[in-house]
Amino acid sequence: MASPAQAKSELDRALAGDVRALARLLSLVEDDAPTVRSVIRDLLPQTGRARIIGLTGAPGVGKSTMTGALVGAFRAAGRRVAVLAVDPTSPFTGGALLGDRIRMQEHATDEAVFIRSMASRGHLGGLAAATPQAIRILDAAGFEFIIIETVGVGQAEVAIASLADSVVVLLAPGMGDAVQAAKAGILEVADLFVVNKADQPGVQQVVRDVRTMLALGTTEPGGWKPPVITAVARRGPQDEGIAELVTRLDAHWDWLCSSGELKRRRHARAREEITALAFAALRGRLAASGLEELAARVADATLDPFQAAEDILAEHQP
Amino acid sequence: MASPAQAKSELDRALAGDVRALARLLSLVEDDAPTVRSVIRDLLPQTGRARIIGLTGAPGVGKSTMTGALVGAFRAAGRRVAVLAVDPTSPFTGGALLGDRIRMQEHATDEAVFIRSMASRGHLGGLAAATPQAIRILDAAGFEFIIIETVGVGQAEVAIASLADSVVVLLAPGMGDAVQAAKAGILEVADLFVVNKADQPGVQQVVRDVRTMLALGTTEPGGWKPPVITAVARRGPQDEGIAELVTRLDAHWDWLCSSGELKRRRHARAREEITALAFAALRGRLAASGLEELAARVADATLDPFQAAEDILAEHQP
Repeated sequence: MASPAQAKSELDRALAGDVRALARLLSLVEDDAPTVRSVIRDLLPQTGRARIIGLTGAPGVGKSTMTGALVGAFRAAGRRVAVLAVDPTSPFTGGALLGDRIRMQEHATDEAVFIRSMASRGHLGGLAAATPQAIRILDAAGFEFIIIETVGVGQAEVAIASLADSVVVLLAPGMGDAVQAAKAGILEVADLFVVNKADQPGVQQVVRDVRTMLALGTTEPGGWKPPVITAVARRGPQDEGIAELVTRLDAHWDWLCSSGELKRRRHARAREEITALAFAALRGRLAASGLEELAARVADATLDPFQAAEDILAEHQP
Repeated sequence: MASPAQAKSELDRALAGDVRALARLLSLVEDDAPTVRSVIRDLLPQTGRARIIGLTGAPGVGKSTMTGALVGAFRAAGRRVAVLAVDPTSPFTGGALLGDRIRMQEHATDEAVFIRSMASRGHLGGLAAATPQAIRILDAAGFEFIIIETVGVGQAEVAIASLADSVVVLLAPGMGDAVQAAKAGILEVADLFVVNKADQPGVQQVVRDVRTMLALGTTEPGGWKPPVITAVARRGPQDEGIAELVTRLDAHWDWLCSSGELKRRRHARAREEITALAFAALRGRLAASGLEELAARVADATLDPFQAAEDILAEHQP
């Protein structure tokens, strides 16, 4: 699928419900293919309707199972759901760590459910750039809910979580991950906390830890106070806590819409996306503007880095 | 200390060995004070002599203890050592997680040892920008070894680790952190692996896991093959594995110098530093170039982000 014309017909098929065409479009995004740009431009009028839910947490807290249970709950309500499982895998180990992805197989034959793993093939920032385009494609294809599941609690996950309208942070007893999550800055972007595996000892301690950390922050009047709920996700919508999670997500969505926060978040996301794309393009231009010579002088300690940055910017300012 | 003239005399005192003047200079860096720039310019001729060692690993692997043991080993050899303990703490929790810093108190009265914690006060990228300046100050102040200790295994740690000449990744049995480290991309930047707590069960499994992951990578002819050693850091240079770590670090330093890799790394670091400083300055200019209007249109799905990025760059290209 090399030409924009071929991409266009693929796009038409994907928007008409052809799952394999959809998968091929997402591969284009993952590979950062040149045709992505025209695909996005063409489907733009169909976007903006999906609710985007981010789900993150440390390995072992039960993210895939929770995602499966959420998918089941949305399906029981007759909604179409897409899942993007985003794994900021190191280029070193490739996709080898993607093992536990396939636990949602019970939904594999349901046409209203689309599940896709995306792994980072190139530089570490690549996924953060690709994910907004994948979201646009799924949104245009008519999925009402898009769940972005990320593995881990690092800054890449924070960046990807910030692409969602509602961010669910999953914790579990006995993993010390509340502190980890705090360090990674994930608490700031969390809209809901779910302490999973609530049938195991120590669940109330995790709930207290999160509440204590939340109490250190401030909620503006009319702001959103992230709820902390408990759950035991095993296999479906009847699992303990799943109905409450759905209710809380709906409440958060209502708040997003009524407070103007949805508009603010989407605006902020657009600002970051434009800036990141502009910086990526500038990287190439800087390389052509004597960056290497300046870097050699900074490395030799004969030029300070602030002056070097000023010099290179002067090249770009008439 | 507001003026450059005051900063200059503070600098002279710090270079002459005044530890409190040194601490105040580092505070300027941490606060991103405007005088930092002239301080760095003035001390530049004195830099480039220190060996910079990065030490990172998940919470609980014994980083502070290992750092203390390394400091002891360098001191026993009569060298001056500075430690920068960098904590990419979330702005949400402030410095509250910096608890276990003070374990190196045995060195607190030794004038040839300088220990400093740096926490992120502002945006998450702030520390990566401040750390090179802190390194330059300590280098100019005559410390022969600068150990940068970072907490965690996320991308912020990878970024900070890449500021070092030699990167030591600390692991421990029973934490599943080899996989975590792999996900965060820390394996790519590791020059040495130390499996600490080697008196606990499971150490050989961790060694095997790391070797397996390393075998997936490739070493160029004449390249550096990261050694995997075991250690039991408790309190000092006589601890199991510390002498071997020092020997391996020396071997890595010799390789860095003889292979040209030191020059390459310092050049690459300079390139990244200049680019980051240029981007930070550009962020302000983009904001003044209609970014908000473009972001509003992208958020409304009436303009695609690629076009928006092109539009904003056109403003900066005559």
